[in-house]
Amino acid sequence: MEEDILYHFSLSTKTHNLPEMFGDTKFVCVGGSANRMRAFAQFMHHEMKLTGTPEDIRDICEGTDRYCMYKVGPVLSISHGMGVPSISIMLHELIKLLHHAQCRDVVLFRLGTSGGVGLAPGTVVITDKAVDYSFRPKFEQVVLGKVITRSTELDEGVAKELLQCSNELQNFPTVIGNTMCTHDFYEGQGRLDGALCSFSHEEKLEYLRKAYEAGVRNIEMESTVFASMCRVCGLKGVYL
Amino acid sequence: MEEDILYHFSLSTKTHNLPEMFGDTKFVCVGGSANRMRAFAQFMHHEMKLTGTPEDIRDICEGTDRYCMYKVGPVLSISHGMGVPSISIMLHELIKLLHHAQCRDVVLFRLGTSGGVGLAPGTVVITDKAVDYSFRPKFEQVVLGKVITRSTELDEGVAKELLQCSNELQNFPTVIGNTMCTHDFYEGQGRLDGALCSFSHEEKLEYLRKAYEAGVRNIEMESTVFASMCRVCGLKGVYL
Repeated sequence: MEEDILYHFSLSTKTHNLPEMFGDTKFVCVGGSANRMRAFAQFMHHEMKLTGTPEDIRDICEGTDRYCMYKVGPVLSISHGMGVPSISIMLHELIKLLHHAQCRDVVLFRLGTSGGVGLAPGTVVITDKAVDYSFRPKFEQVVLGKVITRSTELDEGVAKELLQCSNELQNFPTVIGNTMCTHDFYEGQGRLDGALCSFSHEEKLEYLRKAYEAGVRNIEMESTVFASMCRVCGLKGVYL
Repeated sequence: MEEDILYHFSLSTKTHNLPEMFGDTKFVCVGGSANRMRAFAQFMHHEMKLTGTPEDIRDICEGTDRYCMYKVGPVLSISHGMGVPSISIMLHELIKLLHHAQCRDVVLFRLGTSGGVGLAPGTVVITDKAVDYSFRPKFEQVVLGKVITRSTELDEGVAKELLQCSNELQNFPTVIGNTMCTHDFYEGQGRLDGALCSFSHEEKLEYLRKAYEAGVRNIEMESTVFASMCRVCGLKGVYL
């Protein structure tokens, strides 16, 4: 194609020199909230002792309010909003961006909040497999009206490496476990305080108990599509 | 419950006087982009000739970056992000907010961008039924691991009233038609320029032709859950 427009980043192969802007990227860190991904970029700026002040980092996607994006050294920090559809748009455009920029050996990290299952608050869960509401490690993608099933296993090597790092740090209790991905925050996750609720406290606990038995250690809203797109596109991905 | 926290609005029944803040709300207008919903609120401020300057309106959800919310007279303008999960969280908390604030006879409008099917660019589509990828007027909601099916028909009266308004304005070509809701922007909507694409231009056109025959006039990413939640909660909703 003559021009590739990354609509939701407000970037394009014609208007931006993507290899120059992004060619040295080695780590892409993504998370839901724009403010948090800005704070993370500033933290990385500080940790890497880069020149300039962390407060001056510029949102590369300032032409749109769909996502925000910051680059500090080899680290790209991007927000993805909430839910599978929102992160899926970002991932399509990110993967095209990395391709156009001729990046090599990139590792993709998702850093986000989640609800723990049977764990002490504050525990970090590194995802082994992302599973759906029935605890199956698969993601259903609709392609032209047909449902296609994709696998959701993540890179085992990077997960174990991260677990090792956390053991050395000591004050971050960390486990590797399955992550359940739901498409809503209330009914799908068994919350009793949504606008709609048709189940009892006991039924909720029964569902969470079954999830725990299936190896689920946390619940959130983006993991299955993240894992499946990493696999299909041959990207190393780790999910926290 | 003693306190109801609307987490993603950064509001709560204990820390905010919701009846005082929102009790006179009659119209809630929602759309994906935060900037656009701010601009819409400023536009309404100007149209209603309210006192004060439109530029000074304050984001009621400034304690969070998940959504933004502006109130101008009886109009509430809220962003919902992209995709069914993102708008579903907002709708749960909005419906609880309207309940706590004791609002009556509220009409909910969604104002958003969409891709037209067989229509001239710029045509406004008022949704008759929101349909899924197979053109069925239903929304599948997972509740504690079980799939529940909800209807997605919208209020016919308000839709016809709006069509009548547009006829009087003349320069806004408007139709009533079905709106197809997908869970991604690329593969699900038949786009050829995603990071993944497994179909031909001809197969794409064939799918869009079938959609048109099923009454689909536009494609977007939030309509089914909007329609089903309005129905289940007894809210008058209209989708543009």
